[in-house]
Parts: sequence; C-alpha cells; structure tokens
Amino acid sequence: MKLNIALIGYKFMGKAHSFGIDAAPFFFKDGIEPVKKVICGRTEHLVKQAAEDFGWEEYCTDWRDVINREDIDIVDIATPTINHKEIALAAIKAGKHVFCEKPLSMNAQESKEMMEEAEKAGVINMLGHNYRRCPAAALAKKMIAENKLGKIYHVRAVYLQDWIMDPAFPAIWKLNKDIAGSGPHGDLNAHIIDLARFMTGDEIDEVVGMKETFIKKRPSPVVERELSSMLKADGSNDEVEMIDVTVEDACSFLAKFKSGSLGTFEATRFAGGRKNYNRIEINGEKGTLIFEFEDMNRLQYWNAEDPQEVQGFKSIMVTEDCHPYIANWWPPGHIIGYENTFVNEFADFFRAIKENKQVTPNFYDGWKGNQVLDAVLKSTETRTWQKVDEM
Amino acid sequence: MKLNIALIGYKFMGKAHSFGIDAAPFFFKDGIEPVKKVICGRTEHLVKQAAEDFGWEEYCTDWRDVINREDIDIVDIATPTINHKEIALAAIKAGKHVFCEKPLSMNAQESKEMMEEAEKAGVINMLGHNYRRCPAAALAKKMIAENKLGKIYHVRAVYLQDWIMDPAFPAIWKLNKDIAGSGPHGDLNAHIIDLARFMTGDEIDEVVGMKETFIKKRPSPVVERELSSMLKADGSNDEVEMIDVTVEDACSFLAKFKSGSLGTFEATRFAGGRKNYNRIEINGEKGTLIFEFEDMNRLQYWNAEDPQEVQGFKSIMVTEDCHPYIANWWPPGHIIGYENTFVNEFADFFRAIKENKQVTPNFYDGWKGNQVLDAVLKSTETRTWQKVDEM
Amino acid sequence: MKLNIALIGYKFMGKAHSFGIDAAPFFFKDGIEPVKKVICGRTEHLVKQAAEDFGWEEYCTDWRDVINREDIDIVDIATPTINHKEIALAAIKAGKHVFCEKPLSMNAQESKEMMEEAEKAGVINMLGHNYRRCPAAALAKKMIAENKLGKIYHVRAVYLQDWIMDPAFPAIWKLNKDIAGSGPHGDLNAHIIDLARFMTGDEIDEVVGMKETFIKKRPSPVVERELSSMLKADGSNDEVEMIDVTVEDACSFLAKFKSGSLGTFEATRFAGGRKNYNRIEINGEKGTLIFEFEDMNRLQYWNAEDPQEVQGFKSIMVTEDCHPYIANWWPPGHIIGYENTFVNEFADFFRAIKENKQVTPNFYDGWKGNQVLDAVLKSTETRTWQKVDEM
Amino acid sequence: MKLNIALIGYKFMGKAHSFGIDAAPFFFKDGIEPVKKVICGRTEHLVKQAAEDFGWEEYCTDWRDVINREDIDIVDIATPTINHKEIALAAIKAGKHVFCEKPLSMNAQESKEMMEEAEKAGVINMLGHNYRRCPAAALAKKMIAENKLGKIYHVRAVYLQDWIMDPAFPAIWKLNKDIAGSGPHGDLNAHIIDLARFMTGDEIDEVVGMKETFIKKRPSPVVERELSSMLKADGSNDEVEMIDVTVEDACSFLAKFKSGSLGTFEATRFAGGRKNYNRIEINGEKGTLIFEFEDMNRLQYWNAEDPQEVQGFKSIMVTEDCHPYIANWWPPGHIIGYENTFVNEFADFFRAIKENKQVTPNFYDGWKGNQVLDAVLKSTETRTWQKVDEM
Repeated sequence: MKLNIALIGYKFMGKAHSFGIDAAPFFFKDGIEPVKKVICGRTEHLVKQAAEDFGWEEYCTDWRDVINREDIDIVDIATPTINHKEIALAAIKAGKHVFCEKPLSMNAQESKEMMEEAEKAGVINMLGHNYRRCPAAALAKKMIAENKLGKIYHVRAVYLQDWIMDPAFPAIWKLNKDIAGSGPHGDLNAHIIDLARFMTGDEIDEVVGMKETFIKKRPSPVVERELSSMLKADGSNDEVEMIDVTVEDACSFLAKFKSGSLGTFEATRFAGGRKNYNRIEINGEKGTLIFEFEDMNRLQYWNAEDPQEVQGFKSIMVTEDCHPYIANWWPPGHIIGYENTFVNEFADFFRAIKENKQVTPNFYDGWKGNQVLDAVLKSTETRTWQKVDEM
Repeated sequence: MKLNIALIGYKFMGKAHSFGIDAAPFFFKDGIEPVKKVICGRTEHLVKQAAEDFGWEEYCTDWRDVINREDIDIVDIATPTINHKEIALAAIKAGKHVFCEKPLSMNAQESKEMMEEAEKAGVINMLGHNYRRCPAAALAKKMIAENKLGKIYHVRAVYLQDWIMDPAFPAIWKLNKDIAGSGPHGDLNAHIIDLARFMTGDEIDEVVGMKETFIKKRPSPVVERELSSMLKADGSNDEVEMIDVTVEDACSFLAKFKSGSLGTFEATRFAGGRKNYNRIEINGEKGTLIFEFEDMNRLQYWNAEDPQEVQGFKSIMVTEDCHPYIANWWPPGHIIGYENTFVNEFADFFRAIKENKQVTPNFYDGWKGNQVLDAVLKSTETRTWQKVDEM
Repeated sequence: MKLNIALIGYKFMGKAHSFGIDAAPFFFKDGIEPVKKVICGRTEHLVKQAAEDFGWEEYCTDWRDVINREDIDIVDIATPTINHKEIALAAIKAGKHVFCEKPLSMNAQESKEMMEEAEKAGVINMLGHNYRRCPAAALAKKMIAENKLGKIYHVRAVYLQDWIMDPAFPAIWKLNKDIAGSGPHGDLNAHIIDLARFMTGDEIDEVVGMKETFIKKRPSPVVERELSSMLKADGSNDEVEMIDVTVEDACSFLAKFKSGSLGTFEATRFAGGRKNYNRIEINGEKGTLIFEFEDMNRLQYWNAEDPQEVQGFKSIMVTEDCHPYIANWWPPGHIIGYENTFVNEFADFFRAIKENKQVTPNFYDGWKGNQVLDAVLKSTETRTWQKVDEM
Repeated sequence: MKLNIALIGYKFMGKAHSFGIDAAPFFFKDGIEPVKKVICGRTEHLVKQAAEDFGWEEYCTDWRDVINREDIDIVDIATPTINHKEIALAAIKAGKHVFCEKPLSMNAQESKEMMEEAEKAGVINMLGHNYRRCPAAALAKKMIAENKLGKIYHVRAVYLQDWIMDPAFPAIWKLNKDIAGSGPHGDLNAHIIDLARFMTGDEIDEVVGMKETFIKKRPSPVVERELSSMLKADGSNDEVEMIDVTVEDACSFLAKFKSGSLGTFEATRFAGGRKNYNRIEINGEKGTLIFEFEDMNRLQYWNAEDPQEVQGFKSIMVTEDCHPYIANWWPPGHIIGYENTFVNEFADFFRAIKENKQVTPNFYDGWKGNQVLDAVLKSTETRTWQKVDEM
C-alpha cells in the first residue's frame, strides 16, 4: 500500500519526521510504502535545501497548494503551533489523514474544533506525542493497564531543559507567545501531561499552577527572521534589538486526578545541566514505575510483592523481544535512540490508515491535553484551583 | 567542660540522640564531656529499659521533675510535637540550654513564643534538623554561599517514604493530629523546607498546596497505647478497633521565594519503594546541586563554567578532609551513616554552649519553618496562595 | 558520487549494515549516494527475503558471482568469520573497496595476508569495530590524544553477555569453532581489545589468559542448519541431538602494554543480567574515563585537576554539537542508539573512498587485534605469558 | 560479662577499633561490657594522646608488658603486618582471645603457625575482615548459601584506590615491604579474596598474576619516622631523601576456583577518582549479585527467575529489619557507615567469647587468604599458574 505524504514544516521536527517516515518500512513489515512526496515551507531556499537533505520529491512554499492535491494521502503538520489549526482543518476538509505535532493547537477550544472536524470526516488523525513510543514508556502503560501497580497514589513528572539559560540567547519564535502559544508549558508540560494520561489511563480533574519568565528581554533573533516574518508583513526586525520574551521560562502545577491520585508537574528551560530530562514516576499501592527519557531504554520498577528481603528498584533494560516494539529492532542490550520513537510512531500511524482504525494519541488526546494546559494558565491568573473540564 | 543532659523521650529519637551525645566527644576534640544524666518518659518500664539500653545514669517518669534540677545543663526534647512547647518553655524558664526535635511546635504561633522566650533568656537553643549535618548538605550550603550557583532559579524538593502504605498498619500516634500536629507535612516537609532555607539562604514568600489522606481508617495501635494515653485519662483504647486517621498521608506545595526562585515541595508516606528519600535539587544560573539523603555521602554538581565538551553532572564523594566535618571522621571513601548526623549536630551544639554563641538551626529557624508549614495548610483550606509572613 | 555495494551476509549484521548504508547520506551530507545493489547468501529463500526486507535491488546465492561485477564498488563482508579471508582476498583482487566485519579473520596470519593484499592493491579497507563510532568512545579517544589523562596506568575492560546461559540454548554456528573461530574471545574480546588500542593509542606487549566452556554439550540447532551446512556436504545434522560446544563460554586475560600500563580483559556469555555490557575504564595520572555501551550516550570522567572540594566522576552526556558526530544528529539530550554507530561508520567509510584516504580501523587494526587474540589463546595452552608480537 | 581489652596499635585501625568496641554494647544487647583497658604503641607522646582521644584507661609503650596481665581478656592487634605473628603468638600463649587486623601475617607459613597455635590453645580468634560485616555483604553470603545463585560461573572483584598517585606522596611504612609485607596486594586484594571466599564458600585452586610499581622512588616520610624506627636502631632516616618503594602499586590476577568458577581480581592505588572502591560481582546460573563498598547499604541483584518482561538489576536497600544486623540499627532508609562494620564485627567477636564458640573470619581464614596472596606473588616470579594449596 502506497501512502503519499505532504510535510508542512522542515526544521527539527521536519528532519525527525522525514527520518521516521523513511525508516518505518525498514523496521516494520506491514506492506506499506510511504512516499515522501512534497515538503512545504515559507522560505524557498530553506525548504528547497530541506527537500534535498531529507529526500522529498518536491517542495513548495504555500501549504495551501498541497492540501488539495489528489496524489496526497497524508498531511503531516510540523509547523509552529499557531498554524496547526488552519492547516489541519483544511487537510481534514480535503479528506486527508492528518498527523500533527504537539501541542495540537493554541488552546482547548481550537483543539476541540479540530477533533470534532476530524471525527466527522472520519480521517485517521494522530498527535505527535512520540515519547509514548519509547518501548519503556509503552511497557509502563501496559503494566499499569494490567493492574501491576494497583490504585495509583502519586504522579510525579518533570521535564527539565537548560538551552535558554544564557541571557544572550536570542528571542526566537519559541519565545514569542503569538507564534508558539506558550513556552515550556505547551512545549514540555504537554509531553508529561500526555505521558501521565497515557500511563495511568486517568484524567486530571483540577490544577493550580505558577509560571515565571526569569529573563524578560532578549536580543532579537536575526538568524530566525524568516520565522517571525510569518507574522509581520514588513520584515522590520532585521536589526539586533532587545525584545520582550512573551512566554514563560518555567511552569509548575499541582494536580488532582479524577481517581483521587495526586500529581506534580514541572516544565522549565532553566534547570542547568538538564538537556532533555523528561521524567515521570508513578507510585501505586502495589508498585512504582519510573521512566526517564535520557535513559529511555530502561524502566525502573519497584514491586511491593517481592519478598521483603530482596525488595528494591529494578532497572529493566527494555530491549527484549517480549517488550513493546523491540522485536522489530535489535538483540537485547542494543539500545535504541530518540529518532526511533518517530519510526515506531509512523509505523503505528501508517498501520492505522491501512487498517482504517483510529490510533492513539489522536486529536481527542490533543484536546484533553490542551484542557489541562489551559486550566493551569487560568489558575496562574486567578491564583486558585481550576477545574479542567471547564476549559 | 562537663555538660549534664536530661533527655525527654526515649524512642527512635531517644536512641539517635543518646548515640550522638556519646560519640560527639570521641570524634570532636573540643574539651567537652557530655554526661547522660537522666532520661524521662511516661511509661516506667519502658523508660527504665531505655535508660539501661542507651546508658543514662537515671530515669524518671515526669519531665517536670528534671527541668529544675540544678545539676542539669541541657534539656533535650525528643517527645511528640504536642509536648515541645510546654517542656521547652519550662526549660528556658529554668535557664537550661535546649535542644528540640523538629518540628519545633504545633504551629508558628507556638514557635514564635518559644523563640522569643529563648532569646530573652539567652539560652543556647538548637533545632534537630540533623540533615543539615550531612557533610554533603553542608558542602552544598557552602558552595551556594560562595556564589557558585549564582542566581537561584529552582528548588525542587521531595521527601518520600512508604512505611504506612499497608492499610493494616495501625493508627499510631504519628497519625493522630492531636499529638503529632500533622503527618508527613510536619514530619518530612519540615525537613526539606529547612534544607531549602539552609542551602539557599532565602525565605519562602508564598505557597499553595494540597494534601490527602488516602487511607482514612486504620486499626487502633494496641502496642502503642502508652503513647496515646498521654492524651486520654481513661486508657480506653485497649481493644483493636478502626479509628480515624486525622493527619494527611501526603502533602505537596508550590512555593515562590522572596528572591523570585520557584520551588516545588512534596512529602508523602505513599511512595512505594522509597524508604527515606529526602532529595533536594537546586538550579542556579551558574550550576546545579543535588543532595539525596539515601546517598548522603555524595553531592551531585553541574558546573555551567566547565568547558562545553566535558560538562555533566559530577558525583562528588564528600569524604575528603577538606569537606565539612570529615576531618573528624575517616579517610576518603570510607562513608558515614545516618547516626553520624547526630554526632556532628551535638558536637556543634556543645561547642556553641562552650563558646556561648548561638548555633543554627535554632528556634528562629523553627519559627520560620512553622510559618511555611502553617501557610501551606491554610492554602489547602482557602484553595489559594498564602503569604508566609502572615502566619 | 554513487557507490554500488554488494553485501555478503544477511543476518543480524546484514540488517545493521543495510540500515547504516541507508541512513548515512540522510545524516551526513557528503555528496555520496550509496546504492544497495546486491545482497548475497547461500540459502535462496532467506536471502531473497532479506533483499526485500532490507531494500536491496538484487540478491544472489554465490558471492563469487558478485565480486567481479563491474558495477560493484564496495564489497561488504558480514558472513561468519571463517569466510572473511577468502571473500576479502577475492574482492581485493578485483579492486573493490572492502568493508569487513570483525574479527577480521580466524587468526593473525590470515589477517596479515589480508592486510598486505589490501595495502598492495591500494583499496580502501575498513573493519567493523562499530563501537569506535559511539560519540562517547570517540570523545574518550580525543581526550586521551590531547593528553587529558597523562600517563596511562590501567585499562580495565569487560564485555559481558548472558544469552547462552540456558543449557537448552542450541549449539548454533557461533558455538562452533570451525565456523566462528572462537566464542566470546573473538566476538567480544575483539571489541574491547580494539577499544583499548583505539582509545590509548598503545599496543599490548604480552598477555596471559584463561578460558572455559561451562556447558560442554548442547542441542543441535535445527533451525540454523543452513549455516552449518556451509561445512557439511550431506546436511546430516537435521535431527536434534546433543553436540559438542567447541568454543569457549568465557575468556579473561591480563595484559601488559608496551608503555607499561596494565590491562585486564574479560569476555563472557555467562554473566547473568548483562545483555551487551561492553565497558572500558582507563586510569591515567591526570584523569579517568569510563565508557559503557549500554549507556552509550554518556562518558564518565574524573579530572585530577579539579579543585579537591569538587572532585568526582562526571557523567558527560555526549550529545552536544561540539562532540564527535553529534552535529549531524539531534539537539542535546536527544540520545542516539546502537544502529547509529553503523551510520557513523559507513559515513566515514564512504568519505574515505571519496577522498581516497585510508580510514581506521582497517585491516592493519584487524591484524593487530588478531595478534592479541591469538596470543591469549596460546597462553591458555602454554600456561605462561605470551608476547603478542610473536603471533 | 566484662571483657578487658588491650589494643596494640593506635593509628587508623586503632581509632576504628576503639569506636567499634565502644558502640558494640550500645547497639547489641548481649549482656557484654567491653572495657578499654590499655592501648599500646612505641611512641609515648602519640600513644598517650591516642589513649585520651579514644578513651582508654591506660597506655603503655611495650606490648610485652600487657600480654601477660591477668586483667586482660582480649588482645587486639592493629599494628603493621610484620608484628602480627609475634604479638599473636605471645597472646595465645598467655591464653588471651585474639583479634587481629588483616592480613593475618606476612605469609601463609606464618599464618599457619598462628592458626595452629590458636586452635591448640582454644582461644577465640578473629580476623579483621570488617567488610564481611556490611549488611549487604552478609546478605549476599546468605543468598548464595541458600542457593539463590545456583552454580557460580564468575567472580569479578576489584579494590581500587588513588591515594598515592601523586609522586610527591612520601614513602610511608605501607610502601615498605619489610614492614607492610606488600602493597595493595596484602592491603586490598586480601579483602576481596576474603569477600570472594566468604560469599561463595568456595576456595581458589590456582592463580596467575602481575604486579607493577609505577613510581619507584619517593620522598622519605619524615613525619612517619617513628614507625620505620620500629625496624632501624639508629633512627637514621630523619632527612628527606628519595628512597625506594619496595611494594607494588598494583596487582591483578586471574583465578580458577575449585568448583570451576573463574575469577578476576585487581587491587591498585593508581585508579584516579576511586577512593575506597571495593567491588565484587558474582554471576551464577540463577542470578547475579554485586556489592560495592562505597555504596555499602545497597546490594544489586539480578534474578534469572523473574518474568522476562520485568528482569533487570535490582538495587536492594539493605536497611530492613529482616536484613543482617539491621534490626539493631535504624529504620529503613537510614543508612549506616564504614565504622558500623567494626561495631557489628566486635559485637560478633564478644558474643563468640561469651558463648565460647569460634567465629568467622578467623585465623583459618587468614591462612587461606595468605595462601592465595602468596601464590599470586609466586606466579609473578615464575610467570606461570600457581596452585594455591602448594603455598
């Protein structure tokens, strides 16, 4: 089965998606042949280079040109968040299957509309929460679903980075609220909220949070001006000047789940030494599980039912054939890396299209995630707890 | 210099204090000879046994009998929290130096009174936050005081245990609000709040928290009835019955420090596999430090000023002569244990008495800690942020 | 530049090589277009399937058919060790560039001949010691070359696995000396000997070793009969019977390097819980480095020149742009996996061909490695130290 | 029961023994009252200070004076190795119980004589292999004795330090073969040989080893001249001069056990960053155990019988009441330190005397250990394997 793809966006996620699409049929023998048909971006010389670098047959500079092409089966959205909704709705309207990077949109309201349109149209829709495709994260989900942890008491999640700690780091589009929607909240909390929902199968009921922008002005990002030009007609930000950072640098929140579990969540770009430290710990009455992305091939497990004398945290190397996804990869102990989460993800997406069955996470999950994100932001304004379902 | 001590309380802390008092002059050559004069507790056969086990010259069953003895220099309070204030005030009035276990009292108001009386009387007063005496914790404090971390962005602290997860575990005095004041909040959050204050030198400005009692009824603790009899005249709780747990099982909170740093704090007795997992991570503009009690001989350090090529978290084994307290102990790599924090602590306390200089942490720190504890509890009722200074 | 490849062998290494060849031009923009022309193996239905699975244009069942094809630039040898020499010599004679899996051959004598022929013919030759291409291993080499460790005192290397501990595990070709040459000695010690030579730049002077076969008879491997049929004309080993294991299960040795450093090496398939635990620690007068494959994105470093107060082992996450190979991959903290060592390896190999410069490790390294392997085996017979140069 | 002790030696081990003797009755309620009667050393002002520092009733400068005192029950030998035999034999002859630091003597022949005399006299004799008294090491022994590991395949032990890497470090008595017997071989290999014997219950059959002195001359140790004066009548080494180092800096060996297990052992004082890194890993058919002294409160365990999906190395925190020794210490997670191994050790020794039952390790173990040490040294001369029983 041939699947022709149009990819909108060509930066970091453009590269990761291109690789995932390429490698999926190498590792997963599902009889699917994905075709990297066309890649799309606003700045011609850059998208042309990306097409060459990542192996796309064609490129174009206006996503509207590709949405309605009859030879396109899948629209893959890897643009800044602000563009997700418009592109996705157009793609859905055109009957395309849609893969969209996270967070799904700027807020829960947008996401709800996207979800409803996708469901109405019956297209396969998937959200790019790639960390679900780490075999160790999938094993955690499986174990909890099998009741290996019993009642859940605590979810403890942090996503820590440090790449903008230098005050001289420029105010790139990810630091501009109008384009990115938010800072580490939408970028990182989105991931750990999703992992918590995925692993526990539970939903967050109410939240209270705090956020802070530690460095409030930064140099204008000359080298990135093609991106901010997405918003400005006159391209006037060519000179280096100090501009306002309009997203938060850090955002933490407390959460109560519907089941009664307690959660703590923290996302920051100011945790020195942490590069991509995405960690979640879940304590249940029968056991504890810990997943840490930077050590993604392992899952930590404490089992209350072990004999007392030999209880302890076990470091499971999740590279056995019996583990999720691994039979398609390498022998035990031969660890896999970040990009392989995209391979697993696209393999699942393509198979869903072939079998015409919805896959998760999808736009529903995007909406549920956005509700939590929105509730946290609202709580930082009202300074009190906020029910998630009201968003 | 001879120092005669009366110890009130004889359980876990009674043992730890007795050991610390014994070993202090062995390891610290300050010319001080502490004398374990008298140990005091309500239940005669138990306190008599404790006197024998821990090497006290005498025992008695009413603390009032020892407070005014002329041959007593130090009153050491290791009872349940509810008794701290009454004993401490009496000891202060009698002009004794006072060592008190944490938390200092049931609330900030009590603590303030204790602090004021102690300061007025001019007695040396110390609070039992023994974790400050881990060499690695003291090294962290020293490094931050020397500005090795620069501006602090984040404090991330948890204190996790699991000893009451079994629903059959009885409702001992620590689960009774009237005696203990609170659950892991006063027991564990008290410690990590103190470590945060100690290491950063900063104060918490406002907080918002949540708490939960996961298991609301437990069997009555027959074997502990002598303790609850402290409150009940008729000793009626002899039979095993299900009684209410009146303290929280877990309590988390968000904090904003006066300097603008953000903090997250969590204390729980429901984190399966965690025995005494007291961990604090501090992220500053120039570095990160991590202290974890269960690995108390190490301090983790990330230094932003290392060359990029070799940056990373360093595990410092805090067992060198140049490290705090270590010159009094063993050669490098010969790690020390929990009880040694008490040795270091009492050595510092005795030296303070000898030199007639106040030591930290003292009742002031107890008051500041209680303010934070109280503010968190209030915020769980009002469901909004609470200023700490208002408590 | 187009490079047409013939791959001989199609099992584990066949898959890994195919992937590495595919992904090299995606991540490395060197203007090279490798073409997976033909894959070769003895059993038609299996090699046909492999051609389809791994994306080769053609397949064939006799390697002699492809060696002399004019449209082939590279012969890539991934067969059992016994076939390496014959294939390599034929490929060299035909003027092809040769990539060969390790160990280079059955012994130093064979390897020397292969090296001499390759050098005479002037073809680019490379040996598949892929672990050199872990960025952390390459960083270790670079740091030692820059004298960051000073004089080297110790090399401490182990390569531990556990995949044949079950006595019911069959006697596959890797357990047959006539095909594999040796057991973990040639399979695993070959790797850690190479890492030691690579990182230190030193050669081993003399060795003494021991080896053992713990399980001396195992069931005949019915499912692998096509491989053993390489040796037997009548295909008589179809039935399940107990056959002799003719290779060692474990082999350790002591080594003295030419510089005076001391080394310990151990390879085993009987270290329960170890999957692919390839670890090397190097202690020098100015520092220590530790590389562990299962945690391949990190390098441990102790620096004698750090201030005493903050000395300790540092865990360097080798995912920064300034680290070897990483600029071609992902942002910091986005770790890579096993197969990426092959991508890096083939990228280096292709570039060497394009630039017509020899690359390392090559057949010279294969010969030096084989000398050590042979010397260890001889020492197990003579029960005394054996000079490596005599082999 | 009162036990009067004479301690010969007052440096590092003198301090550790004094503490262990003091604290044993605090933690172990066996009805024994050890009395620190007299401490003995050659240099009066130093031993006088030690008596005061460590709390001994008396001191003296000639060990012969105390051996025959009627009021002495125990002679505790903590001198340099060269004096062990003479003191022990005298003490045995006087009918005293003897505790002796390791290694028991300069060689197997001396140790055999000491063992035979002790057995003949029927005195309780114990050897100071304190690491056996780490609860985690004792747990490992117990688990192996219960057959939790099945047949043992591998023992992998290292004891790494770095305290003499600086060439300016002086040639103290531990670097003088005439006083110390050997370097890290007798100091450190002695410990890991003992741990291997203790945990496995097996004996080493034959060995082959290597040793090296990396730094062959060092400054004369002025400050330690009182110790070397034990050997020299004229006290002539007062000036700082470069003198020969007569012990090895590092010594490694391969071992074959009587059961067929393979062992590797390494002791060095030149492993930069390693302070007291005493580590042993044992691989058996049913599991693996790892003990590491610097993390002495944990035992690592891999269990082959765990379900495949959740297999992995478990970090057991050996601080539960059900673990060896721990019921006498603190609650779970409250770790203990180096000196507590001496407390456990002396408690066992005193109990053995009270119950008049031999304890292990004793002089028999000292002899067996010395046989291995001697065999390794001989193999470094003959350059071939050496049977242990021949020593």
